[in-house]
Order: sequence, then C-alpha cells, then structure tokens
Amino acid sequence: MGMIGGGRGAFIGAVHRMAAGIDGQIDLVAGALHVNPEIALLSGQDLFLKPERNYRTYQELFEKESQLPEDERIDFVSIVTPNHVHYDPARLALENGFHVVCEKPMTYSLEEALALEKLVNETGLVFALTHTYTGYPMIKQAREMIQSGVFGKIRKVVVEYPQGWLSTFLESTGQEQATWRTDPKRSGKAGSVGDIGTHAENLAETITGLKIVELCADVSTFVEGRLLDDDANVLIRFDNGAKGVLHVSQISAGEENPVNIRVYGEKGGIQWHQHDPNTMYVKWLDKPMEVYRTGTGYMGAMAQAHTRTPSGHPEGYLEAFGNIYRNFAKVVQARIDGKEPEPEFLDFPTVHYGVRGMQFIDAVIESGEKNAQWIKL
Amino acid sequence: MGMIGGGRGAFIGAVHRMAAGIDGQIDLVAGALHVNPEIALLSGQDLFLKPERNYRTYQELFEKESQLPEDERIDFVSIVTPNHVHYDPARLALENGFHVVCEKPMTYSLEEALALEKLVNETGLVFALTHTYTGYPMIKQAREMIQSGVFGKIRKVVVEYPQGWLSTFLESTGQEQATWRTDPKRSGKAGSVGDIGTHAENLAETITGLKIVELCADVSTFVEGRLLDDDANVLIRFDNGAKGVLHVSQISAGEENPVNIRVYGEKGGIQWHQHDPNTMYVKWLDKPMEVYRTGTGYMGAMAQAHTRTPSGHPEGYLEAFGNIYRNFAKVVQARIDGKEPEPEFLDFPTVHYGVRGMQFIDAVIESGEKNAQWIKL
Amino acid sequence: MGMIGGGRGAFIGAVHRMAAGIDGQIDLVAGALHVNPEIALLSGQDLFLKPERNYRTYQELFEKESQLPEDERIDFVSIVTPNHVHYDPARLALENGFHVVCEKPMTYSLEEALALEKLVNETGLVFALTHTYTGYPMIKQAREMIQSGVFGKIRKVVVEYPQGWLSTFLESTGQEQATWRTDPKRSGKAGSVGDIGTHAENLAETITGLKIVELCADVSTFVEGRLLDDDANVLIRFDNGAKGVLHVSQISAGEENPVNIRVYGEKGGIQWHQHDPNTMYVKWLDKPMEVYRTGTGYMGAMAQAHTRTPSGHPEGYLEAFGNIYRNFAKVVQARIDGKEPEPEFLDFPTVHYGVRGMQFIDAVIESGEKNAQWIKL
Amino acid sequence: MGMIGGGRGAFIGAVHRMAAGIDGQIDLVAGALHVNPEIALLSGQDLFLKPERNYRTYQELFEKESQLPEDERIDFVSIVTPNHVHYDPARLALENGFHVVCEKPMTYSLEEALALEKLVNETGLVFALTHTYTGYPMIKQAREMIQSGVFGKIRKVVVEYPQGWLSTFLESTGQEQATWRTDPKRSGKAGSVGDIGTHAENLAETITGLKIVELCADVSTFVEGRLLDDDANVLIRFDNGAKGVLHVSQISAGEENPVNIRVYGEKGGIQWHQHDPNTMYVKWLDKPMEVYRTGTGYMGAMAQAHTRTPSGHPEGYLEAFGNIYRNFAKVVQARIDGKEPEPEFLDFPTVHYGVRGMQFIDAVIESGEKNAQWIKL
Repeated sequence: MGMIGGGRGAFIGAVHRMAAGIDGQIDLVAGALHVNPEIALLSGQDLFLKPERNYRTYQELFEKESQLPEDERIDFVSIVTPNHVHYDPARLALENGFHVVCEKPMTYSLEEALALEKLVNETGLVFALTHTYTGYPMIKQAREMIQSGVFGKIRKVVVEYPQGWLSTFLESTGQEQATWRTDPKRSGKAGSVGDIGTHAENLAETITGLKIVELCADVSTFVEGRLLDDDANVLIRFDNGAKGVLHVSQISAGEENPVNIRVYGEKGGIQWHQHDPNTMYVKWLDKPMEVYRTGTGYMGAMAQAHTRTPSGHPEGYLEAFGNIYRNFAKVVQARIDGKEPEPEFLDFPTVHYGVRGMQFIDAVIESGEKNAQWIKL
Repeated sequence: MGMIGGGRGAFIGAVHRMAAGIDGQIDLVAGALHVNPEIALLSGQDLFLKPERNYRTYQELFEKESQLPEDERIDFVSIVTPNHVHYDPARLALENGFHVVCEKPMTYSLEEALALEKLVNETGLVFALTHTYTGYPMIKQAREMIQSGVFGKIRKVVVEYPQGWLSTFLESTGQEQATWRTDPKRSGKAGSVGDIGTHAENLAETITGLKIVELCADVSTFVEGRLLDDDANVLIRFDNGAKGVLHVSQISAGEENPVNIRVYGEKGGIQWHQHDPNTMYVKWLDKPMEVYRTGTGYMGAMAQAHTRTPSGHPEGYLEAFGNIYRNFAKVVQARIDGKEPEPEFLDFPTVHYGVRGMQFIDAVIESGEKNAQWIKL
Repeated sequence: MGMIGGGRGAFIGAVHRMAAGIDGQIDLVAGALHVNPEIALLSGQDLFLKPERNYRTYQELFEKESQLPEDERIDFVSIVTPNHVHYDPARLALENGFHVVCEKPMTYSLEEALALEKLVNETGLVFALTHTYTGYPMIKQAREMIQSGVFGKIRKVVVEYPQGWLSTFLESTGQEQATWRTDPKRSGKAGSVGDIGTHAENLAETITGLKIVELCADVSTFVEGRLLDDDANVLIRFDNGAKGVLHVSQISAGEENPVNIRVYGEKGGIQWHQHDPNTMYVKWLDKPMEVYRTGTGYMGAMAQAHTRTPSGHPEGYLEAFGNIYRNFAKVVQARIDGKEPEPEFLDFPTVHYGVRGMQFIDAVIESGEKNAQWIKL
Repeated sequence: MGMIGGGRGAFIGAVHRMAAGIDGQIDLVAGALHVNPEIALLSGQDLFLKPERNYRTYQELFEKESQLPEDERIDFVSIVTPNHVHYDPARLALENGFHVVCEKPMTYSLEEALALEKLVNETGLVFALTHTYTGYPMIKQAREMIQSGVFGKIRKVVVEYPQGWLSTFLESTGQEQATWRTDPKRSGKAGSVGDIGTHAENLAETITGLKIVELCADVSTFVEGRLLDDDANVLIRFDNGAKGVLHVSQISAGEENPVNIRVYGEKGGIQWHQHDPNTMYVKWLDKPMEVYRTGTGYMGAMAQAHTRTPSGHPEGYLEAFGNIYRNFAKVVQARIDGKEPEPEFLDFPTVHYGVRGMQFIDAVIESGEKNAQWIKL
C-alpha cells in the first residue's frame, strides 16, 4: 500500500500502519507522508521506504506509481491527511486506478463527498472509510441481533462520544492534532461534530440499520477563541419512528474516548461501550441481562469472523481497525484475482457512509446555526 | 405522623414508612390510607393503627386530629397519593397547622403548586418534597464539590433516567402503579416527564446550583393506546451558559432505574449512578480519576452527616429517603422546641423545588406539543 | 426489645437499632447499654429510654424485666457487646425466658459456644446470630440456585473478606473499635479470623450447603505490636470433595469491606460481591453470563420475600440486617401467638452456626500455630 | 524470523505472528510449522513461505538456515510447540547462533530449563520467554509504582488465574489444545499449574520484585479421567515476609481468562485485571482510590514506552504480546548493529524467569503430592 499523510507529528497514520500490519499481509511500500515535502521525505526514511518510492507529494506518488508495472505498483492508498486533503488525493487515486482507504470525515464538504461517491461508482474501485468502531466484532454482533428483530421494533437510541482533551485552548499551544482539527480551513465547517459526531452517527445507523431523518442540534463552542464547535447535543429521529439522543463533546473534562451506544426495542436492547469493547450488555424485559463476550462460541458468524483471539484475551482498537483493512484488502485481492470476495469481507464502511456523514455534519451545523431548529436529512 | 394514601395496593407508602422508621424517631399513629374508605380502614388495620385514628378520609383525619390535644395529635402528614390528590390534603394540612411531607411531582398542575407555595409561605409550616435522590450522601458530596468551584465553571450536564417497566401496555392489565401514572386525570399532563423527569431536573439543578432557563423537548408516547408520554429527550440550557441533555424513558426495555448524572466543568467533573449510590467518579483533566466512597474520612461534612454506616457497608434508597425524613423531623422538632434547627437538617427539597418541577413539566410538555421548539422556563 | 451494649462509642449497636426499626414493628424499650454503668445510663438517655428501664448492668436488666408482667416486659434482648460479654448475658437471657439476638462471633471460646447451644436446645427459645451477609436477598438466591443443582456438583469456592482499616497500629490510638477487636482478653484467640473470617466461613457454608471438613491456614500479624492476627490465607476442603480458598485481611490497605464469593460447579457458578449486593453474576459453561438483580420478577421466592423495594432501588446492609431482625421477630411473634411461623421467617442464622464459627476459629488458629498444617474440623 | 510449530490446528502460533507483525518490522520468512512434516509444509504454504524455506522439521530448518549468508538467514526463531518440544529446538537454535523467542512454560522439565539457561549464558544470545501479561503497559506501571516504595513494604499479594474451558473431559473429544495440555508426555508434570500457574507466579514476582520462598499447594484434578491437575490453590510466602494466595483453575466454569492481581503494601496497593488491561486501580489508606489508565500523561516512562494508542483507544492482548516481540527485536537489532540497546527494550522475560517457572512447577506439584505440605523454592 501507499500512504498519503501520516508522517512526523501525525497520530492516525501510525494507527493505520499497525492496523494494516496486524495480519501480516499488507506492506507499506510507498508514501507521500507530509504536506511539507522535506518532512515527507524524512518521514519516509523513518519508515524505511525505498528512496524511489518515498515521494515528496501525493501528486508525484500517483504519477510515478502509475508508471510502474502492474505487479509492482501499489494496489491502494491510505489517505490519512487532515480533512481538506482527502478529496483531491482520493480523486487522483481513483482516476489512476488505485483503490482507496480514506479517513473520516470523508471530505471537507458535502459537495466533495458527492463528487467522490460519483467517482467511486464510475470507476468501480474499492473504497473504504475508516469508521473504526464498526470494525469491532461486538458491533457486528449488535447489528446482527438488532436487525434480526430479536428485540422487536427499535424505539430509542442513545449514542454518545464524550472527550475532554480540548477542554483548554490547546490549539494555541501549537499541538498539531488540536490545531488542524479546530481550523475551519482544514477541518471543514465542523469541529467535534465532524471529528467524532460522524462516528456516533455512523455507529447508530450501522448497527440499527435505520436512517436518521431529522435532527435538532444544540451546537456549542465553549473554549474562548476556538473557531469550531467543541460540543453538540442532538435530538434525533429515525425513519422507523424511533427517537434518540446523540451527544458529542471535546470539553467533557476527564473523559478519554468512551464511545457508548444504547439501543432499545420493544422486547429488549443492547449497550456497548468502547472502554470494554469485547463486552456487550444484552437487556431483556423479563429476564436477566446477559453479558456477551467476544471469542465465545455463542457469538454470531460475523462477529466470529472478525475476532483474532480466544475469549478472555482482550482485543482492542487496533484489531478493530485491522478488521477494516483486512476486509478491504481481501476484496481488493479478490478483485485482482478476478473472483468474488467472500461475503464477510464486504463488511466495511463504504463511500456511501462517507456521504451520509457529510450530510449529517451539514444538518447538525445548520441546526446549530438556526438555534437548534429541526432539520431534515 | 399521619399518612394519606399508601394503603393496600400502593408502592411508595411502604417506602415512606420504612424511611421514616429507620432512625426510630417517627411513629405512624394516624392515617387515611386509601381513597376507598373501606380499603382505607382495612389498610390501617394492616398497620396496627388504633381504630380511633384509622380514618376513612383525609378530611376526617384533619378534622379529628385537629381536635386532639397538641401533644397527642400528629405533628405532620405524609401525602403519598396519586398526583391529583396532593394539593387538597396538603392545603388542609397547612390550614390546620400540620407540617407536610409530600410526594413528587408536587401537584397536579402548576396552578396548584403556586397556590401551595403561597400557603406554605403564609403559614410558615415545614414542607418537604420527597425527591429521594437528593437524600443520598454522595449527591451532597457532588453538590459541595461542584459548588465549591473545584471543577471551574460548569459547562455540560448529562442527566438520564431510563426505565423499561412501561414497555408494554401494562395499564391495560389493571396494574395499579401503571394505571394511575398513565391516566391524565390522576397523573396530570405528563407521564414519564412528571414521574421521573422531575427527578432528573431536580437532581441536575440541586447539585449544580444552576437553573435550567430554556429547553427543547422531543416527547413521545411509544406504546399504542397510552394516554401520556412514556419517553422524552430534552436539550437543556442553564443560566450560566452550560448546556446539557436530559432524557427519561419508561420504554427503555430492560432498564430498571439507573438514574445517572454527569457534570463537567472546566477542570474536571463528576459522575454518579444510582445503581451504585455510594460511589462517585471524580474526573480530572490531567490526573487519574478518583473514586469517592461514602463513609470514608475524606468525605465532606454534609455527606458524613447523612451517612449511617461505615464505608464498605452499602446504604441504599431507603437510607436516602430516610435522610429526607430525618432532616424534616429534626426541623419540625426544633420548631416544636422553639429552637433553630442545626443547619445540616435544613437540607431537604422544599415547596420551591416543587414549583420548579411543575414549571419544568409545563415547559417540556409545551415544547413537545410544539414539535420540540425551545421554551423558556 | 432490650439491648445489651451498643451505647456511646459503639458502632454495631446503632446498626442493630436501625435494622430492627426499619420494618416498624420492633421498639427498643430497655437497655444496659455500656459496661460502665454511668455511661450506660447516659447512653439510654440519648435513646430516650424510660428511666425505669434504663439499666446500669445487664444483670439488673434481666432481674427487673423478669419481674414485669408478661405483656410489658421485653420479648428479647440484642447482645451487641464485645465477644467476651456474649455468653453470660445470653445465658441469663435464656435462663430468664427471653429470646436472644447475638452478635458474631457467638462467644469468646468454643466451650462457651457449646454451652450456649445446649442452653438454647434445652430452653427452646429463639436465638439469632447476626451474620448479616446471609440476610441479603441475593445470598438467598445464590443458595437456592446452588442447592437446586442447576450448576451440577460444586467443585470450587473462593471467598474473601479484605479490609484495610487495621493497616496501622490503630489500637495504640485508643480507637475503640480497634482496641477491643485486637485485645485477646475481649476478642478471644482470633482477630481478623474471628471478626471477619467467621463471616466468610458462614457465607460459604450457608450458600453451598457444604461443610468445611479440613483447612490449612497461614495466619499472620503484620502490624508490629498487635496481639492478634490481622490476616489469614486459608486452603479449605469441603465434605463433597470441593476445594477452595478463603482469605481475610485487615491490612489490605485501601480496601473497605468488599466481601466477595465465587462458587463454581460442573456447569456454571455464581459470583456475589457485597459492594453491589443487589447484583449476582451467574456464569455458564456455554452461554452468556447472566446478571441477576434483586426486585425483579425472575428472582426466587425466598429472595423476593426478603426484598423491600422494586428493582433498581438499591437496598443495602441495613436492609440485609433488617431481614434477620424481621424474621427473628416474626418467629418470636408466632411463638407468642402459639402459632407455627411461616417457613420463610425461619431463615436466619441459628446457634448452630455460632458453634460452627467457633470451631472454624479454633481450627484456623491451631493451623496457624502449627505453621499452616492441615486441621480437620 | 523463523517459526517452529504454530501450523494448522495451533492457537498460539498465529498470536505470535500477529504480535510480531504489529509493528511492521518483523517478517516470517522460514518455518517448520508442525511435527508432522506433511502438515508442516501445508501450513507453510498457508502462510506464503517460500518453498525453499518451508521446512519439514526444525532440524532441517537450523541446518539449512545456518548455511545461508548471514544477511539472508533468519535472525531468530520463535518456538511455539507443546512443552516437550521446547528444549531441543532452543538448544539447536542457540548452538547454531540464532536468538530465540520461546513459549512458556520454558521446558518440559526443570533439568531442561537449567541446561537451557546454561546454554544461553554461554552463547550470549538473546532469549525471550513469552509471559505475555508482563507486556501490558499497566503491568510496567504497577511494577514501577510498587518497586518505587510508594506503597511502603509489601505485605500481601493475591493473584489468580481462573479458567473454565476444561470443565468437561474435553481432551476425550480430540480438541487439540486440550489434548496436549492434559498429556503428561507433552505438557510435563503439570497441567493448569504449568500452563497458567507459571503466568500467575511470573506476574506476582515481576511486579513486586519479590521472590516466592515457600509455598503450600492443594492441587486437584476434578475431571474424571484427566491425567494432570486442573486446579490449584496455593499459599505463598515471599522473601520479604509478605504472604499471599495464588490460585489457578481450568474448571472454574464460566470463567474466560480473568487474570487478576492485587498487591497491598503498608500505605496502599494496586489491582489489575486482564479483562480491562488498560486500567489499574490504585488504592490508598486515607484517600480516594485512583483509576490509572494507559495512554495518559501521568503514566510513567516505561508504561508510555510500551503504549501504541492514545488514552481511550483500548489496547489488548496482541499489543502486550507485541511489546515482547518489539523489545526482543530491538535488542537483537542492536546486537546485529553492534550497539547497546536502549534500556527500555531490555524489558522482556528472560531465560532466568523460565527457570524460575519450572522451579515453581516442581514445588507446587511436590507440595500437592505431599497433601499440601510446605515446600521451599
């Protein structure tokens, strides 16, 4: 694979590399690892890229890799840059015949997202969006159980993603992660709503199979001087009549990353918490709550197909991330081999989820700007 | 004490009696325990009331008790009837010189609440509203820490009260608790919002010392045939600029009663969960989360004054309830003795909280009826 | 009831009074509340005892109460003194026809315990030993499930009772609870083993229905200057071939009182933890762990009969304690009324459990003295 | 690297490969993956080994790899076979100049362990034993805090490793993991004691820095027909006077793998639980318990050096395992480069821990055979 972004000073690039490496079947062989060409080259040296495939810019990467023989060139690129540099490299990749793994939110704007979706549809290339949380085996179990109807019609969803790391004016210190994420020129129109709100939205829609059709969002910027939102409380309504609450925050001081989702149907429901991702609480109207655990024999087929260790050997974030890469790579490999991929490998977030996320951002921000009026998606 | 309501078929009456009895200084000596005079008498016999003080109606109770010598008559009544029978007995009690303990929500309507507040002010009698959760020692600790400013300015509050017991059309089976709580003639204009929403509102305002000034509520009735709301998701804004989410539900299948509140300030915050009421999580921006436990030496004075057992000996709901009774009784006793009560005993919800709760109900229901528009409190 | 001990400076006396009071059917009317007659009288005044029934000594109490008319005298005494003053007042009570509630460990020595058992058998009076933990509804549920055979033959038991409050030489400061508990003249031959080890032993035998037949104990005194043990690790073997571990400690710094028991059978097992006494984890070989909760409809009859509040309203230590008092009082009342008590009320620890506890203490201490050799019970 | 064992039907081999791959700097290039040469070859094909380095036997592997030029041959082998095939390939590796990663318990017998230790000492080659749990960052934090003396002198250690997967006579079904682990010819003299007891022992000694000097073990085989122990309860004494309990089980029905350790000193202590490996509870005598979390700024240097993701992104078993591989590989690399390794990389279990584990097994089994007498280590 090739990587765009993810060099010195980055956070998520290393995560992608570890996630891609965990199954031992993906090698990083090319990169344009930083917007600054000098740092890009140094970053490539850090990672032992061969000099001839350690590129100064992503444009150069696509140009040169396209000219390599088919069995030598990269099969796909991972785009792990800030949001404003997602669309263009993705476009170039697709136009040059490379499959794409892309960080979320998918693009800088909804317009870009729609253009990208069109391009993916036209080229027929494989595109994966790294909504990591959907890579957890337990999320697949939740989805299977909910969509099987075992809980009856879904009535209520509560999804939350509180963080505390932007409780202070961290971007004023030059901290790189804070700086671009709070910069409208790089992050887009949303701060917390784009960075983590889309995860919450994606998680809710993915596991319930429902669509948010309307929302009402109280969007705030608590830290003085900050240019984008750092907190949002959102009422949501789903296409089947279910109601819900989605709240995200970067100013919930003391919180790390405890993504949490609760779904309630007529007969029971589930709770999953990223803090302990191998556990899911399954609640019932009239009998004891059950505690589902990954790696056990009673887990469904999809969860089992995405678990690497036996029960009691905790898997984490990198393994969930790795599941997206593993599936994506298997589908790419099947494509290369001219075969149909195994159905289980088709399970990763696609470009359509990316469009959905950008629509969500637009709706939340519009609602916030209108003092929390209801907006249809 | 005397009791109005709480006879056969009731739930909360027995809780009041146990809470009142736990400190061994309050005796039930009179009652009009049921709206049906025959059942009232039978209920009184169950509880070994003397026949001459086992009344058929609350009107009779006040008439007869008023005629007893001062040192023989009851000092106060506990009103544990459905909401529509709160105001009139409370009024009669106050007019006849009796102090009052009253269930929440305080009245059937805001008008009644305001009238009652006026009467309490005029008579100067002691009035306690049984918002049980504020009786927990850990809630007093939370209030003390938050209001001391140790967390800086409060920015966000998330308070939730999910239940699942009305997931089915239980009132159609004749189950008594369900029947009156879902009946607009007895419960008032709100179902879940009145029964448990007021608890959530009271908890949030009590521990933060802030006031909700505006809210936007998505109020639902999920169970077909039900006459009142059984779920509400509410965006809230506080007078200091803090934002929050309050959600309550009676259709969250599988949930018991896990009242949960999280408060975040600039430097940290707290989380308290009624499931484990003797524990509070204290979160900080830059250091490990602390786990506060009741009965320990580091707890504040108010929490210690409301704890009966050493650390590690869990206290529960009845002890929290008992704290309201204990404090109320101590203030009544001080009044009888012509003394000033110890300040710690003044800590129980008053008639003003009751008015506040009724305002909250009105605002939520109005917002819900207007398809979740913002309503000022 | 009358009370012996439990006056000023005491801890457990107040617990007994609250536990006895919670159901509103037991009144404290007499007492000899302290070994020092002056303090005894002051303590009785604190509790509003009538002067004529506020006794200076327990001898006086029994003498005077015996002379009262049958329907005026106390029905029973609660003995809440240090261990060396259990036997004699219990003996006097029984000889004078009073039923007895007694703190654990039951006596100062096994000899006293056997004598007391004989006396209870001869007089036929009702005797309850306050092994509080067995009063929890969830313990009754555990016992019912285990003894029903649903888990198959029991193979392993792990029971632990760690505390940290004696991590320092607290008795040197004059702290009353520490002082008598570490004094061989008042506590007996055991410190932690008697005070909390007997609780662990009682819990294990009560819920499994098995008997410990052999044990090997490593008994330690970690705090310099202390006269009795403050830690013990014990290997145990049961009469059905099950094995186990029992460990107790008063020097596990930072621990409050987290009594914890795990029982494993061939097909599954249970875990119960006093920190969250309303919850029990039920584990199975091949299906998800279940989380049992008190107050729910799926709980067994005995657990339900010992629960006061609906599910989700946590009960605690005082309610468990109150269950022992409630049952004891119901049996005493049945005796007075010449009736058979309801079977559910017969469920409280008897004098035989007290003898068993003293045998356990003797065996553990003997094993410890012999450098942890195996001792048969 | 090369791998010995870990082919078709194996469990831990894949874990080693993922752990080695996670940091993208170790490639599997040679193997003798099964005791059956045919299956060995098929297993190598599964993993895309080049045919010329896909060996039929480990003897062949060492013979052929030794003949390759130095910069083409493997640097080290991973030995992931059953216990009886640890010593001989390790010996051959060392004699041929290859560094070694070896599964635990280190050998089939103590004699082999001592011989291996001698050989490692003589050759000066790098040897790592995969006691995975010590790879967790939080274990490094525990070790740092305990050994810094912040808790005072250590008094008590409770370490447990309960599993339930051998509750039935699983080996009779041909299940491969069960079969060799319960076979004295392959596993050695111990079953549960060797497989997981050594983990518990290693964990206790590693984080406390203390040595077990004496133990008393009640060793059991509960499942009829089983040839080795499946449960052991052990009293332990440390060289500083601390006491403890170590218990392991394969018949604790319903348990997965919840390794748990508690260490208590004079002023406080820690608890760590593998179920939630990124969390450690730090308990104090006189202040609230603290909850340490990996990835946070307050963690010590060694913990930080072994953490890959920011706080709130859970790491698991594979990452802990990967830490052993990463460190081992860095030390090997330094050796190749003729440099001193960074001190942090020297942190992995060595051959000496392997000898220690075999001594522990011998002592526990001897104690068990003598009906739980005390045995000195």
